Amino acid sequence: MIRVPGIRAVIELLRYNSAQVKEIWIAKDRTVSRLEEILNICDREMVPVHYKNYKEISLLLPGISHQGVVAIVPGFRYYSLKELISLIKEIEDKKLILALDHITDEGNFASIIRTSAFFGVHGIIIPKNRSVSVSSQVIKRSSGAYLYVPIIRVVNLAQALEKLNKEGFWIIGTSHKGNISLYQFDWDRDLVLVLGNEYKGISYAIEKTCDEIVNIPLFGAIDALNVGVAAGVFLSEITRTRKLMYKN
Amino acid sequence: MIRVPGIRAVIELLRYNSAQVKEIWIAKDRTVSRLEEILNICDREMVPVHYKNYKEISLLLPGISHQGVVAIVPGFRYYSLKELISLIKEIEDKKLILALDHITDEGNFASIIRTSAFFGVHGIIIPKNRSVSVSSQVIKRSSGAYLYVPIIRVVNLAQALEKLNKEGFWIIGTSHKGNISLYQFDWDRDLVLVLGNEYKGISYAIEKTCDEIVNIPLFGAIDALNVGVAAGVFLSEITRTRKLMYKN
Repeated sequence: MIRVPGIRAVIELLRYNSAQVKEIWIAKDRTVSRLEEILNICDREMVPVHYKNYKEISLLLPGISHQGVVAIVPGFRYYSLKELISLIKEIEDKKLILALDHITDEGNFASIIRTSAFFGVHGIIIPKNRSVSVSSQVIKRSSGAYLYVPIIRVVNLAQALEKLNKEGFWIIGTSHKGNISLYQFDWDRDLVLVLGNEYKGISYAIEKTCDEIVNIPLFGAIDALNVGVAAGVFLSEITRTRKLMYKN
Repeated sequence: MIRVPGIRAVIELLRYNSAQVKEIWIAKDRTVSRLEEILNICDREMVPVHYKNYKEISLLLPGISHQGVVAIVPGFRYYSLKELISLIKEIEDKKLILALDHITDEGNFASIIRTSAFFGVHGIIIPKNRSVSVSSQVIKRSSGAYLYVPIIRVVNLAQALEKLNKEGFWIIGTSHKGNISLYQFDWDRDLVLVLGNEYKGISYAIEKTCDEIVNIPLFGAIDALNVGVAAGVFLSEITRTRKLMYKN
């Protein structure tokens, strides 16, 4: 079982995946915002509601601002690479997968999951070690978006990329050292977009597996965007050019 | 005087604005990363270094992960609207200003400042009340980017927008309820891009001042991006279309 804290994440869960929700906890000694809305959905969808003390909830979710509302759902399930490959076989559009090369900040990971759900990314691959994982904090901060994007955890990221390369995917790294601009690159292909660590960028082992490294051209005074924002910029441009192409 | 905490922010300051730095504090009882680099610049630029206990620094910067390094600089100075208007008169490119309609999360504000510096935004306008301000936390999390974008604080945001409108700026709101896509809108004009509050979006009073409301079309499962990511998506598209135009 995992605990999904926070008003927005809980409402998102109840609205779209209420069958998954085992129960809802609500702080009985605090004002909980949008309480009526939550209780109405629980009532309609027959989700049991348990009232607890705010402090009691805090003890179970240390350091997380749960806002007095928690949903209990079956444990988060990572997909395997094999499952991902089989899942996306059915997709008719060009495929788009993200790979995170040792991202370490949970806020960035949550933001990338949310952005991926927004733009309809088909999967996010993360390595098992020295990397963020899908924690309660990430679940909360993704505002429920983790429900919409398969997340794949692999032991060896380079090997996973090589495997996808053999399956016909282009492996495209992102770095300010890249030699082609994202506004010029032809995104109309099945691809894995690789985002690097917040400080070190893409590691050498991963860079070697990339078919191309693409940059965001520099227009201002600083040379790097936050990785979560960079994800948004890339996904927007990929989506824009693909959709424009489908229109013609 | 304000305190600028964190390795990255301090190095950025020392590199590009060392004349502004009054002194550097360094924790003497902790391993400070990139210490040699910091000391070398301080030595070369004749910036005084003071060694303090890590705890002592923490007491002065409660709740902020300062990483054992702090720069002391003269107080942060907001620009007035009048100064901004006079500053940007000299810019030959089409002008681009951001207005934040009561953003409340410091992480989002810091991310927007950094993204603005990256894309060369000419100024960011925030309201004085019920809004983020340039705190030590924001300064740190913007990784030094606050040095490159004038930040303007106004008492009445709607009035400021009306004033800029009279100066020839188009006031462009952003919302998923907007009736034109950012990929279709003609960005080649002097404009103020308005980003709304994290939960409520753009307020009615501000919406009334907008000439147009632009959306990011929905491609996936959820209907809203994080406001910091949305800023990146908009600024990237504005920059792309403007630069492409200059090329033709």
